[in-house]
Amino acid sequence: MNTLRLSSFNGGGNRRTVVTVDGVRVGEDFVVIAGPCSVESEEQTIITARKVKEAGANMLRGGAFKPRTSPYDFQGLGLQGLKILEKAKRETGLPIVTEVTDPRDVSWVSEYADVLQIGTRNMQNFSLLQEVGKVKRPVLLKRGMHSTLKEWLHCAEYILAAGNPDVILCERGIRTFETYTRNTLDLSIVPCIKEVSHLPVIVDPSHGTGRLSIIEPMSLAAMAAGAHGIIVEVHYNPCEALCDKEQAMPPELFAGMMRKLQVLHSCMKQINGGNGSRSSAGIPVIHDQPIMGSILLNSGGRL
Amino acid sequence: MNTLRLSSFNGGGNRRTVVTVDGVRVGEDFVVIAGPCSVESEEQTIITARKVKEAGANMLRGGAFKPRTSPYDFQGLGLQGLKILEKAKRETGLPIVTEVTDPRDVSWVSEYADVLQIGTRNMQNFSLLQEVGKVKRPVLLKRGMHSTLKEWLHCAEYILAAGNPDVILCERGIRTFETYTRNTLDLSIVPCIKEVSHLPVIVDPSHGTGRLSIIEPMSLAAMAAGAHGIIVEVHYNPCEALCDKEQAMPPELFAGMMRKLQVLHSCMKQINGGNGSRSSAGIPVIHDQPIMGSILLNSGGRL
Amino acid sequence: MNTLRLSSFNGGGNRRTVVTVDGVRVGEDFVVIAGPCSVESEEQTIITARKVKEAGANMLRGGAFKPRTSPYDFQGLGLQGLKILEKAKRETGLPIVTEVTDPRDVSWVSEYADVLQIGTRNMQNFSLLQEVGKVKRPVLLKRGMHSTLKEWLHCAEYILAAGNPDVILCERGIRTFETYTRNTLDLSIVPCIKEVSHLPVIVDPSHGTGRLSIIEPMSLAAMAAGAHGIIVEVHYNPCEALCDKEQAMPPELFAGMMRKLQVLHSCMKQINGGNGSRSSAGIPVIHDQPIMGSILLNSGGRL
Amino acid sequence: MNTLRLSSFNGGGNRRTVVTVDGVRVGEDFVVIAGPCSVESEEQTIITARKVKEAGANMLRGGAFKPRTSPYDFQGLGLQGLKILEKAKRETGLPIVTEVTDPRDVSWVSEYADVLQIGTRNMQNFSLLQEVGKVKRPVLLKRGMHSTLKEWLHCAEYILAAGNPDVILCERGIRTFETYTRNTLDLSIVPCIKEVSHLPVIVDPSHGTGRLSIIEPMSLAAMAAGAHGIIVEVHYNPCEALCDKEQAMPPELFAGMMRKLQVLHSCMKQINGGNGSRSSAGIPVIHDQPIMGSILLNSGGRL
Repeated sequence: MNTLRLSSFNGGGNRRTVVTVDGVRVGEDFVVIAGPCSVESEEQTIITARKVKEAGANMLRGGAFKPRTSPYDFQGLGLQGLKILEKAKRETGLPIVTEVTDPRDVSWVSEYADVLQIGTRNMQNFSLLQEVGKVKRPVLLKRGMHSTLKEWLHCAEYILAAGNPDVILCERGIRTFETYTRNTLDLSIVPCIKEVSHLPVIVDPSHGTGRLSIIEPMSLAAMAAGAHGIIVEVHYNPCEALCDKEQAMPPELFAGMMRKLQVLHSCMKQINGGNGSRSSAGIPVIHDQPIMGSILLNSGGRL
Repeated sequence: MNTLRLSSFNGGGNRRTVVTVDGVRVGEDFVVIAGPCSVESEEQTIITARKVKEAGANMLRGGAFKPRTSPYDFQGLGLQGLKILEKAKRETGLPIVTEVTDPRDVSWVSEYADVLQIGTRNMQNFSLLQEVGKVKRPVLLKRGMHSTLKEWLHCAEYILAAGNPDVILCERGIRTFETYTRNTLDLSIVPCIKEVSHLPVIVDPSHGTGRLSIIEPMSLAAMAAGAHGIIVEVHYNPCEALCDKEQAMPPELFAGMMRKLQVLHSCMKQINGGNGSRSSAGIPVIHDQPIMGSILLNSGGRL
Repeated sequence: MNTLRLSSFNGGGNRRTVVTVDGVRVGEDFVVIAGPCSVESEEQTIITARKVKEAGANMLRGGAFKPRTSPYDFQGLGLQGLKILEKAKRETGLPIVTEVTDPRDVSWVSEYADVLQIGTRNMQNFSLLQEVGKVKRPVLLKRGMHSTLKEWLHCAEYILAAGNPDVILCERGIRTFETYTRNTLDLSIVPCIKEVSHLPVIVDPSHGTGRLSIIEPMSLAAMAAGAHGIIVEVHYNPCEALCDKEQAMPPELFAGMMRKLQVLHSCMKQINGGNGSRSSAGIPVIHDQPIMGSILLNSGGRL
Repeated sequence: MNTLRLSSFNGGGNRRTVVTVDGVRVGEDFVVIAGPCSVESEEQTIITARKVKEAGANMLRGGAFKPRTSPYDFQGLGLQGLKILEKAKRETGLPIVTEVTDPRDVSWVSEYADVLQIGTRNMQNFSLLQEVGKVKRPVLLKRGMHSTLKEWLHCAEYILAAGNPDVILCERGIRTFETYTRNTLDLSIVPCIKEVSHLPVIVDPSHGTGRLSIIEPMSLAAMAAGAHGIIVEVHYNPCEALCDKEQAMPPELFAGMMRKLQVLHSCMKQINGGNGSRSSAGIPVIHDQPIMGSILLNSGGRL
């Protein structure tokens, strides 16, 4: 674990990192990032942004650069997409989370993004990691779909070592033999990360499962497992989505899920004995507690 | 899906199966099965049984036959172990869940067991499945650590087709590349099963993670994901356990976790809008709801 | 590695085991086992047996008990199938390799089988392993499709520890994310086994790939990698096969492949510097050589 | 398969691509690329280059940019490393294969490299693929350690679609649960690729196994399976290697392996019925044959 100098729990001075994005405190509040997989049009993005804002989301997600398996698939709107996101932010006040895929784009994409997302296929794109390590923007680092916790934290280490302390980890499902779901969402990694690292960790139930019908139970489960937030694909008209339409949540379902998350959030506060301040999403904050009390402090946390 | 004639949701007449074990209603109540990995001695078993009973467990687990990777590892006490379990049942009233590994043992082990467990390595031991399909004892069928949902349900189908309708599915973690946990607990399979099958499904966070420190958050998450129960390894003195000591929960931690599960259970009842009767563990029942309402009924459930 | 007392190279007294089956010396000769996946009829079996005999096969394979994913698939002819195999042996002189799936069947199936096969799904069926460990019949132990070398050798250890020294290991493909092939044939396990164990190891390119078109190159590759033989599915009329028809080889292709294997066999003898006696299939024997000479003896072989 | 417009067998006009590198014809000759994992010093590189040249290698490999799991591991010498490779080429005449990891480096690295290597972690680094698609240098595209054939060919498609027709595929092992080897070398992918694509395919037994002792049998097996070449790590003094020392081959072992490959090559020529011209490594050329004759043409090749 000595190569995780900055990302391990000790490396953070035994204090949890809170990444602040326009007042949203990731690692302290339970944050909800929502929005379309890809920015397809101004109408789609603005309407969806308003809907998720109303339902209580804290940030807006939307891809302008889409890494796709086939070169012939829709690759995103690029700069035009970023300008649409900028407009959506002006309208709703929601900070923007958007993916960057090329080290040459990091600097100028940072002008539009409040959080730079590194996608699962680029988790070990070390040139890209070093580049986002140089800018003053928080980074949401998705887990490689085939990677171990140790490999993932080493990628966070690349960013931290390059000078950027604001890394948010995001579990997004790993590849297994199960075919009913697109990937297998590994919720157990959430408490594991909290054992070994000071970095906040959120969960992506949309890509992690690829099935609309199980996003709600997995979001509730993510909160119960101790995640610091979720990132969810919402589309104002899923049937027309250019990308991942089978997992995009319609706004009404998203709003219903948000209400359930709020109920659960109060309950988790009670369970964890926190006194909780209010989060920006109207969801009270869970103050982070050692997972199972001091009795377990000796049990591990070594990779 | 036409080869899942009996195990699919349609095969059950579109009604959920409730498996009744000595008054405990699996598939309706949230059930907690707890106890040692293996029966090691009368003292160990009886004391542990009393402790888990006090904490609110509904059934006692304990292995008398242990399938072990190496032939030189402890293989269980066999008949002597079953007699100890019988005594623990007399003392506590808890029904017994115990593993059977050989088709020749099914008939006589059924004299001692209230639920016959099929372990992960025997999920596709078709001779054994057919044999437990012939007796009048509920079967707890663990998922193979490498199996898909489709393969697993076909194994349930073997038991149902042989004449035994009382099958409880148990997610116990699948093998992935992650090494920090022993296996990867696939909580997403819980709502998936509820989409495609009428059979109840519980979760084993002990074998599924292999790490004591994350059993509690994963148990809470299992409940939030909609599982019908959990099966947990508890040992009155984990340091002395002959098997899987690194994941055995001491009774005090188990009792603390049970209190949190009870708080969460009330919350989930509120979230799901159920009116809830009381379960035998003092945990109110969640009446099973369609996962996300009729809007999603068309989205799937096909394997 | 101290739990591999009997199966490790040291456990065999640093000498390679040769398993003799009716004069065929597995572990010394390069053996070819061929025949239908399942015994379907007398005509199918006898004609196929004659064809593979003519082409130079050393043993006949054929399943009378078929472990199938679905209970509604063809499960084999049972005793009737064994009687057909007996007749095929009388006609061709080929020893019979056939699968056993239930510990209760081991004793009587041994009356018909010259080699008892343990299938991939039963690799860790410890009751079955112990039972075949008690009879005087060589055992062909297939690798579990999800198992490691270490787990596999522990299963061989169960058989050896029960008293049966004649175990032949069989690589049959492991489950990976690749979907173009049915499984991924792990040829690299062949030289690995020869480093750590004294047991002979053969390769099943039919189940290991599930694609007729690549069975020949993978059989040649298996020989080049140092395997002690192959087991191949041949069917006199693949279109009518009840099981695995997409990988069954027609006899003409099998005969052509056998000619190529004979050419390669002479070449491998030259490469390995052996002087080679003739095998029962007309293929000269490769005397087993340390894989890369004494220079590498220190490099490992520890699990 | 319609998204593999350029990389599929039909996309190549049903003719196999031969990639010519300084007179070495990849896809026609059996090529051997050898050299150190990383360029560490002039002495190390030049001596190793001379040794592999003497033994019959066709090209020199050596990394100047090393993507490493940890940011604190040796990352390569960069430009200095490329200059050393240039010098080694002047001394031996061997063309240079070297990795590029950043789209910003492609243009200037192409001044030094005869073949640009895309490593396993960058297989789906689409920006990088598009950039190497724009230069006039052959590209050696390693398979992602977790990728399917279909995903891999789509990455080749990115390069072809950007205008570069000279792509060499390289199997380098996939991640499985086996721990005895570092990865599982998937030789079965070789004949599969030849079924579905016109691109040449070589094999990396060094990274694919991570075990020095099995590189020779796996290289022989790769040739027998029909690969168009191998790429092997050779280090003049493996104990001092800064990277992957446990798999680096000393020159004497490499020379011995080359002699065996030459014997096998003549044999494979005879087996495949080719008449063979001489390759630049002194190894006669195998003219590529349809794998199993026209009888199988209908069996597939669809992804």
